[in-house]
Amino acid sequence: MKLYDYFRSSAAYRVRIALNLKGIAVSRAHVHLVRGMQHDADYRARNPHGLVPALELDDGRVITQSLAIIEYLDETHPAPPLLPATPEDRARVRGIALAIAADIHPIDNLRVLQHLEATFAADAAARATWYAHWIALGFDALERDLAGDARTGRFCHGDAPTLADCFVVPQVANAHRARLDMARWPTLARIDAACQTVPAFTDAAPARQPDAE
Amino acid sequence: MKLYDYFRSSAAYRVRIALNLKGIAVSRAHVHLVRGMQHDADYRARNPHGLVPALELDDGRVITQSLAIIEYLDETHPAPPLLPATPEDRARVRGIALAIAADIHPIDNLRVLQHLEATFAADAAARATWYAHWIALGFDALERDLAGDARTGRFCHGDAPTLADCFVVPQVANAHRARLDMARWPTLARIDAACQTVPAFTDAAPARQPDAE
Repeated sequence: MKLYDYFRSSAAYRVRIALNLKGIAVSRAHVHLVRGMQHDADYRARNPHGLVPALELDDGRVITQSLAIIEYLDETHPAPPLLPATPEDRARVRGIALAIAADIHPIDNLRVLQHLEATFAADAAARATWYAHWIALGFDALERDLAGDARTGRFCHGDAPTLADCFVVPQVANAHRARLDMARWPTLARIDAACQTVPAFTDAAPARQPDAE
Repeated sequence: MKLYDYFRSSAAYRVRIALNLKGIAVSRAHVHLVRGMQHDADYRARNPHGLVPALELDDGRVITQSLAIIEYLDETHPAPPLLPATPEDRARVRGIALAIAADIHPIDNLRVLQHLEATFAADAAARATWYAHWIALGFDALERDLAGDARTGRFCHGDAPTLADCFVVPQVANAHRARLDMARWPTLARIDAACQTVPAFTDAAPARQPDAE
């Protein structure tokens, strides 16, 4: 399998964590988003959406969307499981992941920030305020979710990493980059700190990738 | 089970379709988003994210996020299945759903449009252009995905509805509301037309809901 990756992509970072947790080795191709490599015809032929990550299977078929890729990895490499056993708990873990994957990250994505600049002449300060707004709004709700549920343990769900933690850690990294003070979200900060003791998470960090700048 | 619903919410519409395809009856509560009912303390206690849909289970626990809810319904009520049998095909169907759930809809959501108005003084015309931009960008890629894959049939994946169709139909409805010409996306238009012959889809339409205005 080959992962189309970019060190700073928060969505690719999720998949790197899942691959590490499962101990799955893949080859890598680096798609430099800021240089616009996602628009190259060769990449668009593989992934018309022009986003990363994408996972190319050995038969040439391509899976897009970080959550779909991680569910695929969990189905094809079941140990250790990234989803809990009951449907109710699985729904909770997917809900946490999607609160980030659907409600925070897409609104702050590079192409949206570029479109804000092009359309509304949003300068760097306005873009930074926009970026922080959606993280804070989403984290306020996630913090209430996590702090108010007895199923939260050392990690988002119990005492072993799940798919939800694969989404939380890259989003917390984005919050740090935006200089948000995580003290406002103590449960998220505590879970992130627990993840930072696990090599599967730290080895997936942007600064540790071969294409890091 | 109780569904927290809003007739015009595209995310709630997805869940209504899935419930109908499964033949599952639930009670309903209507959360009027334009009147701001999602901010009420009573609703926020159930769903801190303040979005719809949310599915309240009989034990009081709440599942958020349309994709997590539909996966839960598929796991607990397996017939008819909304995901195909192989991991590769399941990943494809989830990828189509997420191309809408993560890459189109969140950027066009009501709260984002309201924030554009408040932050950048985006008037109705600017908001409409923004709204259409993200649908067109996403649909261009989805059209290539669907048209170029032999697994596409009468519906997104083969000849029976899947989870992917639950996401496509509400997004096509949004495109119609934005007066986009679906002729640009013939495969998406054809799949939507096939779905419109199935009562599970038509009965879930916003205009058919008890809270429709």
